[in-house]
Amino acid sequence: MDIVVPILTPFNNGKIDKEAVKTHVGNLLKKGVDIIFVNGTTGLGPALSKDEKKEMLDAVLDVTNKVIFQVGSLNMNEVIELVRYANDKDVLAVASYPPYYFTLPEEFIILYFKDICEESKHDVYLYNYPGATGKDVNVEMVKKIGCLTGVKDTNPDFQHTIKYREVEGMKVYNGLEGLAIASMSVLDGTVVGAGNYAPELFSQLREYLKDGDMKKAMEVQLLINKLVGLTQKYGQFSAVYELTKAFQGYDVGSPRPPIYSLESKNLIDEAKKIWNK
Amino acid sequence: MDIVVPILTPFNNGKIDKEAVKTHVGNLLKKGVDIIFVNGTTGLGPALSKDEKKEMLDAVLDVTNKVIFQVGSLNMNEVIELVRYANDKDVLAVASYPPYYFTLPEEFIILYFKDICEESKHDVYLYNYPGATGKDVNVEMVKKIGCLTGVKDTNPDFQHTIKYREVEGMKVYNGLEGLAIASMSVLDGTVVGAGNYAPELFSQLREYLKDGDMKKAMEVQLLINKLVGLTQKYGQFSAVYELTKAFQGYDVGSPRPPIYSLESKNLIDEAKKIWNK
Amino acid sequence: MDIVVPILTPFNNGKIDKEAVKTHVGNLLKKGVDIIFVNGTTGLGPALSKDEKKEMLDAVLDVTNKVIFQVGSLNMNEVIELVRYANDKDVLAVASYPPYYFTLPEEFIILYFKDICEESKHDVYLYNYPGATGKDVNVEMVKKIGCLTGVKDTNPDFQHTIKYREVEGMKVYNGLEGLAIASMSVLDGTVVGAGNYAPELFSQLREYLKDGDMKKAMEVQLLINKLVGLTQKYGQFSAVYELTKAFQGYDVGSPRPPIYSLESKNLIDEAKKIWNK
Amino acid sequence: MDIVVPILTPFNNGKIDKEAVKTHVGNLLKKGVDIIFVNGTTGLGPALSKDEKKEMLDAVLDVTNKVIFQVGSLNMNEVIELVRYANDKDVLAVASYPPYYFTLPEEFIILYFKDICEESKHDVYLYNYPGATGKDVNVEMVKKIGCLTGVKDTNPDFQHTIKYREVEGMKVYNGLEGLAIASMSVLDGTVVGAGNYAPELFSQLREYLKDGDMKKAMEVQLLINKLVGLTQKYGQFSAVYELTKAFQGYDVGSPRPPIYSLESKNLIDEAKKIWNK
Repeated sequence: MDIVVPILTPFNNGKIDKEAVKTHVGNLLKKGVDIIFVNGTTGLGPALSKDEKKEMLDAVLDVTNKVIFQVGSLNMNEVIELVRYANDKDVLAVASYPPYYFTLPEEFIILYFKDICEESKHDVYLYNYPGATGKDVNVEMVKKIGCLTGVKDTNPDFQHTIKYREVEGMKVYNGLEGLAIASMSVLDGTVVGAGNYAPELFSQLREYLKDGDMKKAMEVQLLINKLVGLTQKYGQFSAVYELTKAFQGYDVGSPRPPIYSLESKNLIDEAKKIWNK
Repeated sequence: MDIVVPILTPFNNGKIDKEAVKTHVGNLLKKGVDIIFVNGTTGLGPALSKDEKKEMLDAVLDVTNKVIFQVGSLNMNEVIELVRYANDKDVLAVASYPPYYFTLPEEFIILYFKDICEESKHDVYLYNYPGATGKDVNVEMVKKIGCLTGVKDTNPDFQHTIKYREVEGMKVYNGLEGLAIASMSVLDGTVVGAGNYAPELFSQLREYLKDGDMKKAMEVQLLINKLVGLTQKYGQFSAVYELTKAFQGYDVGSPRPPIYSLESKNLIDEAKKIWNK
Repeated sequence: MDIVVPILTPFNNGKIDKEAVKTHVGNLLKKGVDIIFVNGTTGLGPALSKDEKKEMLDAVLDVTNKVIFQVGSLNMNEVIELVRYANDKDVLAVASYPPYYFTLPEEFIILYFKDICEESKHDVYLYNYPGATGKDVNVEMVKKIGCLTGVKDTNPDFQHTIKYREVEGMKVYNGLEGLAIASMSVLDGTVVGAGNYAPELFSQLREYLKDGDMKKAMEVQLLINKLVGLTQKYGQFSAVYELTKAFQGYDVGSPRPPIYSLESKNLIDEAKKIWNK
Repeated sequence: MDIVVPILTPFNNGKIDKEAVKTHVGNLLKKGVDIIFVNGTTGLGPALSKDEKKEMLDAVLDVTNKVIFQVGSLNMNEVIELVRYANDKDVLAVASYPPYYFTLPEEFIILYFKDICEESKHDVYLYNYPGATGKDVNVEMVKKIGCLTGVKDTNPDFQHTIKYREVEGMKVYNGLEGLAIASMSVLDGTVVGAGNYAPELFSQLREYLKDGDMKKAMEVQLLINKLVGLTQKYGQFSAVYELTKAFQGYDVGSPRPPIYSLESKNLIDEAKKIWNK
């Protein structure tokens, strides 16, 4: 029952704040998080330059090697450069979403991941997020790719996530907070952006599940749902910065436009009321 | 961990074969099924006349009163007549999908269910199936309706199903075979059309879950997925007739066009190979 | 540049009001409508019994034989009975949507239309409405069916409608008011539910297009859009009854629940303000 | 009836080939194209660096100032830098898609375009492409933004494109080849990636429309549809390079992975058979 957190990328005047990264990662690990996912969607991966992606990795590696390093890009030269960068480091795995934005034939997607595998010394994980990339790398494609050993499926269709289990030995995570209870119950764990500001809740959920107390576990799940629903109302990628500061007690900077900063007292007040904190 | 089966409606020359209904229901109960859902989608509910819907109820009630009676229709006079018919019988609940086909304002949907509740002596369950009805009666609408006490959510979005848990005391089932393992683990159980031809598999899945053997449970789930995938290839509403005969050993007639009969030796051969039976 | 109107079905205490039908049809023809589409979606076709569908046809035929008769149903016996009923009448064509609600294999849909063609003495038109039926009978399927001679495609994807032009000699209409200007410009005409309450606007639009005055034509189109947008806010299938009475000056009864009646003074006031009437 | 072509970006060993750009633009103008759209989707805009986007603009400006310059990015600093770069040049307009990939609140999208307008000396056009960006900047949002003067709507829903006409004076184009006939008939023109390899066809279509010969115009449209359908089968963003070379007679280099090169003799043979060239 892994708890994986795709960490936010803290900006200060448009530059990555490496000290904030380290403080944040240290805290998450202390609160029960197992693995840090770098340059994911919550980390604004598609908005980072190649060099910023390396910077983020370096900052996290200063604290832990329990890291999955996301290397996806629309420029293959950059992808390969990032894979090679990781080859010299100690990480759990590299991961990538398929190329977003463009409608591409299935063969291109397969080739994309094969190219990554060929270059990587580490395990290669799929980050499947059809809602953002506009394409679905399903279990049939994973079988054709042949070299992937894990998947983070950010997908409300939980049937879809379960199907990856057909691949022998594959690590399977769902990436939606609202499915944490299900992902922890029947898969290898959960990848949750809300873990940035509420790692305690996911740890607590896991405890109740280990104890077989489904009623209490469901109460925690419904609380998580309410917090996530609130962030979606305000703009989830911006809200995570405010809530991390409010609930974890240290500054994690701000996002970078066009992911604009929220300066919303209301968000924090509402969140505190929900969580009773 | 209820196992609910929406039973098929057996036709013989376009008429309901009541004896086949009884044989089938008796067998399902013996194999561990807890509740029979009558006139659902697998039962071709929307294609049945008002009188045929009553006939189905009567046939099932000859065997068991563990029955949920689906009464939905595009003619409110018929809906009410069916609710009243059930009032004189011993059933667990009446249920309805929202009016399908037409795009309707939310108020109409709310009114529709309130009208049913007002007339019914029994519990009223929601049958939510956005993929077929084109509309989603989500937890917010359920709160506005105010009188529903159960829901069968046929929905790949498992987050959506979980959210009904916000309504105190509501029975919550997901209606997709591919989510049986998740529905049994964290909800009140599963409603599965594949239970017509493979009730043993769902009973077995439940046993493994009770024993905490997630690995074995997942194996059964993947086997179920393969069978369901096969029926979808051939036309799932027709395939269920063939497979019930092949696997349960008695004739359950045929569907009624435009749900055409399959006469496919291949389907049965492939299914037997998958299930090893 | 045909203007086709799928007429509403007027109810009085739950029964069809045949006199209202005749008054309505007579008025529409006088205002420039060319063809009456009976038992369509605006006519609540899927909510009518087999006998009510015949009644509607008879009432319209008392006024005109410029009629397309929609015969679709989820019970093939009923479909065939309606086709035969039309065989003894003078109509332009019979039409059908594919079976709605159920997910069916392509072969079933093809068989369904072939069965209709085989029985019909009249031309057979496709009524394609993916948004309501959940399935798309596209030009490739039409080619496989082989016997269809016309299509009403209720589809915002106007590329999709244009593609039916690949079939030599096929009558091609789009069924969305918001595309009237485009359908009249490049196809055989338009099928418009709003023609029930505003036939004048579509006649006017056609005049401007014939005169090559695209600017004025676009103004009429934008006015139509506003009226349709208003009905969608209130519930379009109910609003058409109120607006027909308000703008055409005679009573057309009411819809039948669960298509509930509106008793909304606001709707009419807002509509009058938009149309300046 | 403008014909706008979003030009491809020719790469040679991963670098932009500026001479190929100039040859290509010169040819397009000669064949009747009115406006060049730079850094669009066909131009692989989202896969270009900030500096590459400038390079493309410079190359095109060497040939013509009938240019729309697309400046969108997930990093606002880059967007503003590109707008300022254009300020010193003679172009028709700058344009931008909304930020892709991320789900963002409506306010962020509005702010994004307002920020561009504030900085730009030129007209600012919206490039709306919901299928790629996952968000729809519809006419209501355009009214809230307030400063946009044109739109390229890449959208099969032609109703949606028509609605932008509500904004007084706005230039309105649809961006799908399959809607060229409709866009030219009722809007300001068409933006067509297929114009890279078949500018003659769009010029011909326009001639037929000007002559009022809808039958011939539709024949050209159906031919265009077949060519586009073919490219989609092979991967449209790659196929455009091959077909431009095959049909226009000069080398335009290759795309850049993960938009992999096609080396497909079949594509060209099939395309030639369709077009009879």
